[in-house]
Amino acid sequence: MIKVGIVGGTGYTGVELLRILAVHPEISVSCITSRSEAGMPVADMYPNLRGHYDLAFSEPDVAVLGACDLVFFATPHGVAMRMVPELMSAGVRVVDLSADFRLKDLDVWANWYGMAHESPEWAEKAVYGLPEVVRDEIRAAQLVANPGCYPTAVQLGFLPLLEQGLVDPARLIADAKSGASGAGRQGKIGMLHGEVGESFKAYGASGHRHLPEIRQGLSGASGGDVGVTFVPHLIPMIRGIEATLYAELKNPADFDRLQALFEERFADEPFVDVMPFGSHPETRSVRGANQCRMALHRQEQSNIVIVSSVIDNLVKGAAGQAVQNMNIMFGLKETMGLEAPALLP
Amino acid sequence: MIKVGIVGGTGYTGVELLRILAVHPEISVSCITSRSEAGMPVADMYPNLRGHYDLAFSEPDVAVLGACDLVFFATPHGVAMRMVPELMSAGVRVVDLSADFRLKDLDVWANWYGMAHESPEWAEKAVYGLPEVVRDEIRAAQLVANPGCYPTAVQLGFLPLLEQGLVDPARLIADAKSGASGAGRQGKIGMLHGEVGESFKAYGASGHRHLPEIRQGLSGASGGDVGVTFVPHLIPMIRGIEATLYAELKNPADFDRLQALFEERFADEPFVDVMPFGSHPETRSVRGANQCRMALHRQEQSNIVIVSSVIDNLVKGAAGQAVQNMNIMFGLKETMGLEAPALLP
Amino acid sequence: MIKVGIVGGTGYTGVELLRILAVHPEISVSCITSRSEAGMPVADMYPNLRGHYDLAFSEPDVAVLGACDLVFFATPHGVAMRMVPELMSAGVRVVDLSADFRLKDLDVWANWYGMAHESPEWAEKAVYGLPEVVRDEIRAAQLVANPGCYPTAVQLGFLPLLEQGLVDPARLIADAKSGASGAGRQGKIGMLHGEVGESFKAYGASGHRHLPEIRQGLSGASGGDVGVTFVPHLIPMIRGIEATLYAELKNPADFDRLQALFEERFADEPFVDVMPFGSHPETRSVRGANQCRMALHRQEQSNIVIVSSVIDNLVKGAAGQAVQNMNIMFGLKETMGLEAPALLP
Amino acid sequence: MIKVGIVGGTGYTGVELLRILAVHPEISVSCITSRSEAGMPVADMYPNLRGHYDLAFSEPDVAVLGACDLVFFATPHGVAMRMVPELMSAGVRVVDLSADFRLKDLDVWANWYGMAHESPEWAEKAVYGLPEVVRDEIRAAQLVANPGCYPTAVQLGFLPLLEQGLVDPARLIADAKSGASGAGRQGKIGMLHGEVGESFKAYGASGHRHLPEIRQGLSGASGGDVGVTFVPHLIPMIRGIEATLYAELKNPADFDRLQALFEERFADEPFVDVMPFGSHPETRSVRGANQCRMALHRQEQSNIVIVSSVIDNLVKGAAGQAVQNMNIMFGLKETMGLEAPALLP
Repeated sequence: MIKVGIVGGTGYTGVELLRILAVHPEISVSCITSRSEAGMPVADMYPNLRGHYDLAFSEPDVAVLGACDLVFFATPHGVAMRMVPELMSAGVRVVDLSADFRLKDLDVWANWYGMAHESPEWAEKAVYGLPEVVRDEIRAAQLVANPGCYPTAVQLGFLPLLEQGLVDPARLIADAKSGASGAGRQGKIGMLHGEVGESFKAYGASGHRHLPEIRQGLSGASGGDVGVTFVPHLIPMIRGIEATLYAELKNPADFDRLQALFEERFADEPFVDVMPFGSHPETRSVRGANQCRMALHRQEQSNIVIVSSVIDNLVKGAAGQAVQNMNIMFGLKETMGLEAPALLP
Repeated sequence: MIKVGIVGGTGYTGVELLRILAVHPEISVSCITSRSEAGMPVADMYPNLRGHYDLAFSEPDVAVLGACDLVFFATPHGVAMRMVPELMSAGVRVVDLSADFRLKDLDVWANWYGMAHESPEWAEKAVYGLPEVVRDEIRAAQLVANPGCYPTAVQLGFLPLLEQGLVDPARLIADAKSGASGAGRQGKIGMLHGEVGESFKAYGASGHRHLPEIRQGLSGASGGDVGVTFVPHLIPMIRGIEATLYAELKNPADFDRLQALFEERFADEPFVDVMPFGSHPETRSVRGANQCRMALHRQEQSNIVIVSSVIDNLVKGAAGQAVQNMNIMFGLKETMGLEAPALLP
Repeated sequence: MIKVGIVGGTGYTGVELLRILAVHPEISVSCITSRSEAGMPVADMYPNLRGHYDLAFSEPDVAVLGACDLVFFATPHGVAMRMVPELMSAGVRVVDLSADFRLKDLDVWANWYGMAHESPEWAEKAVYGLPEVVRDEIRAAQLVANPGCYPTAVQLGFLPLLEQGLVDPARLIADAKSGASGAGRQGKIGMLHGEVGESFKAYGASGHRHLPEIRQGLSGASGGDVGVTFVPHLIPMIRGIEATLYAELKNPADFDRLQALFEERFADEPFVDVMPFGSHPETRSVRGANQCRMALHRQEQSNIVIVSSVIDNLVKGAAGQAVQNMNIMFGLKETMGLEAPALLP
Repeated sequence: MIKVGIVGGTGYTGVELLRILAVHPEISVSCITSRSEAGMPVADMYPNLRGHYDLAFSEPDVAVLGACDLVFFATPHGVAMRMVPELMSAGVRVVDLSADFRLKDLDVWANWYGMAHESPEWAEKAVYGLPEVVRDEIRAAQLVANPGCYPTAVQLGFLPLLEQGLVDPARLIADAKSGASGAGRQGKIGMLHGEVGESFKAYGASGHRHLPEIRQGLSGASGGDVGVTFVPHLIPMIRGIEATLYAELKNPADFDRLQALFEERFADEPFVDVMPFGSHPETRSVRGANQCRMALHRQEQSNIVIVSSVIDNLVKGAAGQAVQNMNIMFGLKETMGLEAPALLP
């Protein structure tokens, strides 16, 4: 059994890790930390876990974490970068679900996250863990930066187009929408049911922290700078991201081979499902599942490629992808613990 | 008192007309028709109207409708085009909330609506009733084609940009999202709560009936053909449309004057509210109200203008705009019966 | 014009008061206070009010409030009892939407609200403002304690049964359900969309602050002590309360006259609607409206009277009833400003 | 591998069976029937199952079903009673998720379901499959009538009280609330998102088909007739039932031992969780899981026992309990395929 620790377990990604790991046959969760809730049994905070875990939240303790094979960070930004170096020295492997190690340009990081980065060394060494792009590097990594939720949905949908150089990289638009769990589990007035329910809005339209992460990833796929406009929106639901992507085809004749291109690109990917041309993926078709489903569209008289891409922000957009990365890192079957279909309806 | 008839009153736009007209001081609703529910009191179907109306649904009868000053059609497409000519001859004025008279190119209409148009004469004479564009023509019109819900939100947001020729008219993108009431009140499995709730998806991404209507309106504003990509989405809520619009500024320096331009363009419009630059309009801020609120955004290093525009699809996107048109047609105060603030939360 | 002040305007009852008063023809809101948001325009916090109010929140100032004809308190408990005495001395009339003056037994009050009452004199003089019971006293009152949301729905439904002594007063059960806006607008984790959405639960099942208020009101109607079990539940929606009430008929033969009894009891009440026997009132039929709708049911082989009673917790359960009380106090038409039908769908 | 057939697979219980069985290690689904959708791949209708099943819906064919080890009926009432006798003759075992074999009194059945029962012989032999009551009979049964959703939540909560004779059996009240998936997946206007969303109501308050089933089960537990009032309500969410149960304790002193009694009664039950006294079970704590969670409450000065009981109507209230019954019938571990924690949030 692989011994796993979780730092920052009271948020939605924390409980989602516990939910997934509860049925993972090769994992034993040996500690889960929370400064604010130390001592409280996890099943008291999350009654869906009653009968599954006897653990209580504990104060984060590097000695205890250092005895784990792998530690997940499910913390706000700024925490992992301070604790990771010591764990690295102890030989522990880490999957960081926070944003601390996602950006390679630390000036950009500092600018968006409002603090200086405290572990430039590991920021450089960290592997940005999108398995569909860098599976082999993940296998060997000691530190994996788990991608953000929006960046996962957006990158996967644009990837085949950019890798093949079929679209104008300067004119990418990603109109993305997320359920409320993406904002985490803090008592913010703006995230109350009375504020979020029965309403829809854009937010961060003038700039969102996931924009530089998306830009970095797409530039990598494109082999050069990209111009991408990214607008997130808040959906009155709990789980799910849909990203509608727009790109301008350099040669309209390429439309005919796009579907085949996408299907080939992801043919061996267990967690990316290219649906038939003209399909409309629903977020519920991936609820609770580590899946990205996508479909292509074209409107008459248009050379705009439209891609609709959906994930569950807490699974393929966070905890599920983290477990996928862990499976890769430890040589387990990549789908282990991640086989269950989505919960629909 | 102006005598009003409503044809097709059992759907959501029908009940919304009744809700609004219940407090309109100059209107008396003298008949409301429904083939399927003839004889049923409207307050039995819509208990929110108990105490407000003694009317029952009746069979549509041109003699009765012909005695009205104005008739609203809240019918599926294909109904109004058959009944309108006779009402026109009887001197009745009509606001048609259906799609029958919105498009000027009847080949396009036939193509999207799957039938030949049966009243080409009145399709030509009909005024497309977006008051912010053609108020004077509405005043004099006998037949007003009330705009669609998406087209209202999209056109209002793009108007200032296109009228001033500031953006590339060939590269317009409208990513629009609507609550479920936009699909009407028919027993379709796809619109069940169990299907719509807690899920989000694009639909009609390869082509939607509102696309030609949007294209017609934007071409008018632009003074020439436009290239517009329009993707609608279904939000798990009841009322509200948010459209996020993307356009490429010809001259990035123009960014500095966009806010003032929008404010001036709509300064005298009682039902268009330009919020401060960088705001995020919420659909709930217009729920139940005949308002369009919009705001502008810019992302760093980008010459894409982003406009977020929200309306209540049943009000400014249907029944409210119809009453606004009626007020204009009869020389009433344009805001009469439409003064109440939105219901928030 | 009647000059109105509102203390504590940032919560949901505050904005609801503003929404209703925006179309009230005899009212001018002259000040609205908030310690935390002093200086912020109300329309910045509540964009549905843009164009309706130029007011900004101000620090509470007894001098300013003392110049009003009427002051609404939309504050947490414990605030009104401290400020009311001074306003009373200044001759201002007050409708307190908080719980401060609802209970006559101040030991009970202290027990449930966790503090000693600081204005026993005015607690005694205050009129518990359920117009359907004590309209004449409200007319003459200087201080009205506006009833709680649950107590309004529960009392109205039980009233005719208890006033006529038809049911066993020792065996009353009120199973009540409320939307999330009833919990107010504070940043509590338990009220996040991610916690409330797509879930349902009882809360306060072992005892809730509205229980003594219900007991007091029902005892008054019954002319003696009552035994009532009250369990509130949280519905994943924003507005609306449904209370299903169970009472044991002393004489089953009385079933035949219950419908007539209820209809007569509320025949002259503008805001209570007794629906036909066997109807199922929906909360949406009163959304945004100052209405209580109710209906009676009987199951075969049973002498249990079932009453289903619905209100909008923010309207007939709070701000609407407060305006109704104000109308009565100032000799206005009781329905003034409260005529609009509910928002459905 | 046990070969399983499903009759009537297009509804919500059908897809839920498929979701659960997809990860069941001992089961192979060999056919799934649908008259209306014959030929359509199940994964086209339910995209969450893409990659999990290659099956298409087929016409129901007794020869094919007769080759299965077990057949689930997920059909409307009236179907199973016609097909079951032939399957019984073929030696197939059946779990019927419909209401056909739940009631022992066929006059009562005929009265509530509006048709004569066509298989009295098997109605008598069928085992009413509530494992917590008749596990041994289920083990040996050829035909199991899977309990209804409401009856499961209500019976489990009342069981310990009635079995021990602690409460007045003539005065039971069950106020139950369900998400919309309980109404199935048919295109009924009343179940549209626009009708169900943001609203709450009682329904069937004068009598519901689950009432006689509840009465039969509780009478069995009580050892004599019971008087039970049962009112169902519709919650604006998809999955979940909460039942708040009220019973009058014969001897108030018994309150002290109720918690222990409940805990002992269900100590060996893998799918019933008695939470600490005074807890408030949330439906989300069992979403997607085959669990019933319950808690006890008492209000001061009261001898009413309050039990709050929650299940997922599609799992412990339908497909999950059906799989649990199947596991018992085939001597598998009772929890096999049912181990995953609920999806929260």
